Amino acid sequence: MAAKLPTVLLASFVVILSLAAPLLAGDPDMLQDICVADYKSLQGPLRVNGFPCKPEANVTAEDFFFPGLGKPADVYSGNPMGSAVTAATVERLPGLNTLGVSMARVDYAPWGGTNPPHSHPRATEILFVADGLLEVGFVTAAASSRLITRVVPKGGVFVFPRGLVHYERSVGEKPAVAISAFDSQLPGTQTVADALFGSSPAVPTDVLVRAFQVDGGVVENIKSKFQHK
Amino acid sequence: MAAKLPTVLLASFVVILSLAAPLLAGDPDMLQDICVADYKSLQGPLRVNGFPCKPEANVTAEDFFFPGLGKPADVYSGNPMGSAVTAATVERLPGLNTLGVSMARVDYAPWGGTNPPHSHPRATEILFVADGLLEVGFVTAAASSRLITRVVPKGGVFVFPRGLVHYERSVGEKPAVAISAFDSQLPGTQTVADALFGSSPAVPTDVLVRAFQVDGGVVENIKSKFQHK
Amino acid sequence: MAAKLPTVLLASFVVILSLAAPLLAGDPDMLQDICVADYKSLQGPLRVNGFPCKPEANVTAEDFFFPGLGKPADVYSGNPMGSAVTAATVERLPGLNTLGVSMARVDYAPWGGTNPPHSHPRATEILFVADGLLEVGFVTAAASSRLITRVVPKGGVFVFPRGLVHYERSVGEKPAVAISAFDSQLPGTQTVADALFGSSPAVPTDVLVRAFQVDGGVVENIKSKFQHK
Amino acid sequence: MAAKLPTVLLASFVVILSLAAPLLAGDPDMLQDICVADYKSLQGPLRVNGFPCKPEANVTAEDFFFPGLGKPADVYSGNPMGSAVTAATVERLPGLNTLGVSMARVDYAPWGGTNPPHSHPRATEILFVADGLLEVGFVTAAASSRLITRVVPKGGVFVFPRGLVHYERSVGEKPAVAISAFDSQLPGTQTVADALFGSSPAVPTDVLVRAFQVDGGVVENIKSKFQHK
Amino acid sequence: MAAKLPTVLLASFVVILSLAAPLLAGDPDMLQDICVADYKSLQGPLRVNGFPCKPEANVTAEDFFFPGLGKPADVYSGNPMGSAVTAATVERLPGLNTLGVSMARVDYAPWGGTNPPHSHPRATEILFVADGLLEVGFVTAAASSRLITRVVPKGGVFVFPRGLVHYERSVGEKPAVAISAFDSQLPGTQTVADALFGSSPAVPTDVLVRAFQVDGGVVENIKSKFQHK
Amino acid sequence: MAAKLPTVLLASFVVILSLAAPLLAGDPDMLQDICVADYKSLQGPLRVNGFPCKPEANVTAEDFFFPGLGKPADVYSGNPMGSAVTAATVERLPGLNTLGVSMARVDYAPWGGTNPPHSHPRATEILFVADGLLEVGFVTAAASSRLITRVVPKGGVFVFPRGLVHYERSVGEKPAVAISAFDSQLPGTQTVADALFGSSPAVPTDVLVRAFQVDGGVVENIKSKFQHK
Repeated sequence: MAAKLPTVLLASFVVILSLAAPLLAGDPDMLQDICVADYKSLQGPLRVNGFPCKPEANVTAEDFFFPGLGKPADVYSGNPMGSAVTAATVERLPGLNTLGVSMARVDYAPWGGTNPPHSHPRATEILFVADGLLEVGFVTAAASSRLITRVVPKGGVFVFPRGLVHYERSVGEKPAVAISAFDSQLPGTQTVADALFGSSPAVPTDVLVRAFQVDGGVVENIKSKFQHK
Repeated sequence: MAAKLPTVLLASFVVILSLAAPLLAGDPDMLQDICVADYKSLQGPLRVNGFPCKPEANVTAEDFFFPGLGKPADVYSGNPMGSAVTAATVERLPGLNTLGVSMARVDYAPWGGTNPPHSHPRATEILFVADGLLEVGFVTAAASSRLITRVVPKGGVFVFPRGLVHYERSVGEKPAVAISAFDSQLPGTQTVADALFGSSPAVPTDVLVRAFQVDGGVVENIKSKFQHK
Repeated sequence: MAAKLPTVLLASFVVILSLAAPLLAGDPDMLQDICVADYKSLQGPLRVNGFPCKPEANVTAEDFFFPGLGKPADVYSGNPMGSAVTAATVERLPGLNTLGVSMARVDYAPWGGTNPPHSHPRATEILFVADGLLEVGFVTAAASSRLITRVVPKGGVFVFPRGLVHYERSVGEKPAVAISAFDSQLPGTQTVADALFGSSPAVPTDVLVRAFQVDGGVVENIKSKFQHK
Repeated sequence: MAAKLPTVLLASFVVILSLAAPLLAGDPDMLQDICVADYKSLQGPLRVNGFPCKPEANVTAEDFFFPGLGKPADVYSGNPMGSAVTAATVERLPGLNTLGVSMARVDYAPWGGTNPPHSHPRATEILFVADGLLEVGFVTAAASSRLITRVVPKGGVFVFPRGLVHYERSVGEKPAVAISAFDSQLPGTQTVADALFGSSPAVPTDVLVRAFQVDGGVVENIKSKFQHK
Repeated sequence: MAAKLPTVLLASFVVILSLAAPLLAGDPDMLQDICVADYKSLQGPLRVNGFPCKPEANVTAEDFFFPGLGKPADVYSGNPMGSAVTAATVERLPGLNTLGVSMARVDYAPWGGTNPPHSHPRATEILFVADGLLEVGFVTAAASSRLITRVVPKGGVFVFPRGLVHYERSVGEKPAVAISAFDSQLPGTQTVADALFGSSPAVPTDVLVRAFQVDGGVVENIKSKFQHK
Repeated sequence: MAAKLPTVLLASFVVILSLAAPLLAGDPDMLQDICVADYKSLQGPLRVNGFPCKPEANVTAEDFFFPGLGKPADVYSGNPMGSAVTAATVERLPGLNTLGVSMARVDYAPWGGTNPPHSHPRATEILFVADGLLEVGFVTAAASSRLITRVVPKGGVFVFPRGLVHYERSVGEKPAVAISAFDSQLPGTQTVADALFGSSPAVPTDVLVRAFQVDGGVVENIKSKFQHK
């Protein structure tokens, strides 16, 4: 894949990656029954750890509902990874604020659609294979860098410990679908290749040359695939 | 429903209720990458908060995998609620130990299959409707005892805050299926009717007479449906 | 008890129930010595998890003091439960904000005054019997729904684990008094009967018929006792 | 008070001080309904953060009960402080293990009985005056070392933030009694004078001379009152 | 040391003491990648637990940087302790907000420069000796008041558990320097002598007479050294 | 750099990388003053989250001391990164158990010695430049993958938020030295290149081809540099 990816495709791809695999874990405890995120406060001058709460009189059942995990995302047109993440975090499901959980749907193209190696800095992920066949894996942080990997069939569950790099790849004939949950209202996602080769400003080439033990041309070539910002 | 339910049916029903809707929330943080639950330690003299860890050399990918959420449970034969929970908590998925999440599948019979009012003392629950149509609701603990309720279609997500009583009911023509996640490795489930009318030993009838403002005959009648232990 | 309770009595009764058994547990850690709750902020547009802090120059010793646990509450006139809770949570004792504890006094009429089955979604409760004789109990969430119960004399202490349903009942000749503490600044209280039969809007009768295995008339009758909102 | 206190009196005094004012706060969350402390495990080779759990089959209601806060302690005979603490922490009330709370009763002699300046490293304390009249105070850690102090009458509640030095003193005609609660199963108590002048081995006199800006004779004199170990 | 210390010297001394040994521990978890403290919000009417966040567009690398731990502080002129603390907490390094850590540099005069007994209510401290030779110690809160003490050479590390009283003293020929870290963004520091004898308003002399078992003249004399506010 | 690195050099390099930048954050709270890690328990059958505690009678000041951060590590001979980490975590400093902090020293060769991109799954890192000149940076997990970077001189402090990828590089004429602290007793370190290209077993080449948008030859070449296990 020598050519630079079209910007418009990459833009949507970046959004997708940046939402990849939200999760659930270790948020502070709530101090009242509910504290629905008040998005309007974001337009004002004050932000807090998490979100301020809507006045309870304005809270409705809609605040605890998100409709969007039912439809498959497009994983084909101009999508180099063959996967797409649809997230239901506190940024879209305001009732999650202070509750310490979130969810996401991931769609994968058949035979190789890949959610590339990434980590969630603030959550463990538990993944349910709703359809298709997935190969999944995570790498331990211990000195041994051990890869724990397995093929997970439809109906199976797998777990990725908090903060560790992991990936999923479709290995079946039909599109795969995963429903993942996280123990954080906004787990964050750091896709390795994008963070290192697509950051803004760029990580210095010399740092990447040393880190990956390759020459500068290889680094520049990879950067060209991710320079989208 | 005057007759006492057959014991054998109730036994399975109790198991189902006791697993109802495990969830994810607020567990202590982990102190190493992984600490796979060592079930054998349960046969020894020592138990700890959570589970001890297997020696890492014995850990395999199987420890992070659970196959059993793919198949529907029987919600018809002798099941008075018309629902059944299949749990993937640390008691069955040892890799969850110290990671702060778990999952469950709930099956519901069409038109009225009900996961009756219950709470999870240690977790918030985020629920994904994988199939069918569910009416869901939770009650706030504030003085107003406000019911937050909605019908959730296939593909929709809803959240039940930690510790609050909630229920789900199938309101569609076909069986419903939910995939729920929790921010605890073992959220616990307390089904209201079973805890109050089916505990062992029994909660004194006088207490229940006062609590529900009914006469003793009504209490005894309800108890007869849940005296299964 | 066929007649509907007078509304005015129920109103006070509801307030009492809604405050029942505040407790102590698991709030997030504080980030400064003190953060006295600034109640005025509730009149403004912004709410947060817990309360904002008063400017330290305005803080006085009064903020850490609550006078009201010394006097018995009225547990006789029109009080169907024969018990009343006086709470000292962050809503009345602003210095508790961020500190993770609260207290309550519960008064019970002699021979049967009952704090009916309820749970605190965010705290464990530790109860000290200041006067009288109390029968207390809680039910475990495990499959066995085990009731742990005991009579506690004056001077005795008992503990109710976080999130589990529990009750207390006076079983002596004189009025009983309990001082309870909780590991949360606002533990919340969910009284089972009130949450299920007195919520607003109401939990559907069909759900309660299934949950309690009774016919609709019994459910409607109980609802009539708790329809106060 | 020139003479060294008799050893036998100091011994009991030390025990009392060391238990002074246990409290409630910030313990890790529980991972199951109950985990009653298994004291026998202390005789074995393995200790853990907190206590291991008794097998659930051995758990009884007695594990959640402590009878000993009803009787006044002796605050007169050979007690230089005129106060005594009776603690109900996890060390005596095994059911508290993993639950994050504890309690204590403090007795004070009339007119001056003092629970001397101390802190609890792991908990906030909420104090209820069950009898008598108490002057209480805590000092903030900020640069200003502000003393927040007040007289608390019978029935009043006051709170001491986690980790800050505080004291109570009886200022009424009759003996005072406090019931205190803490958000930790074992809050710990560090009585300032005892920690600095009575530790084993001793804090070097030079350090205390600098710290208190007095000469060595004064330090040695104070040490002689607390050299009891 | 009979004379009262000059006010101006005490003022700086107080600032130094109040910053002594900031640390790192147990803060609530963050809910987004970064939440840089917005100091301007302190001028407005609203404060929260910790600090509000700057809008992300205004965040720069400067927010995560603090230059000031490189230079030695003056520990000679009019400094009765012979030590000085330079803190890098959230109050000076805004990027630390929600991140749960902070740092400090402590300078000590040769042969006896002392960071007097103090505690950090919200953090454990881990101390690295960058230069010189330090004697360090902490006292356990258990009944035994055990002093754990050692001389730590250049390059050595020592740890003081959260909330326990500790001190450091230079015992070498050259000035000593320590770099300490804490598991809290603002650990707080309570210097024992200053809190008890220099608070504003003053702790009653009677309380201190009882607590330290000395006569009132000694207490008044010590107070005269710390009455600076 | 076409040739495969000598195995023996890589082995030590791997150990160094695997210890890179331990940190401090979010561990569970302690339940007693101290719980010194009992390493002997690792030889027995039982492991727990963290470590069991030594009997207190066996605890000495040595348990809280680590001597090894004073000496520079070798960053020249056969070290492709030009950096080396010496860690003082709970695995070497047993007194850190349950206390929530740790430290590390990092040495860097002049002009380009690099601690390559890595993350700590369980801690924020606060870094003090003890000598030399360091360029440091971290990448946010948000969609923008923003790089926050700066040159930090001797005496400066910088902070890397929990779980985010970061790096440091010496940009001065003399060797650089950093002292880093973390809010976890064992923060874990996941070096990106080593985790993805050096894991055991290996991450499938197809996954890496997709993730980095390069051809298989490039992936195989990088793997050859990290195949050391």
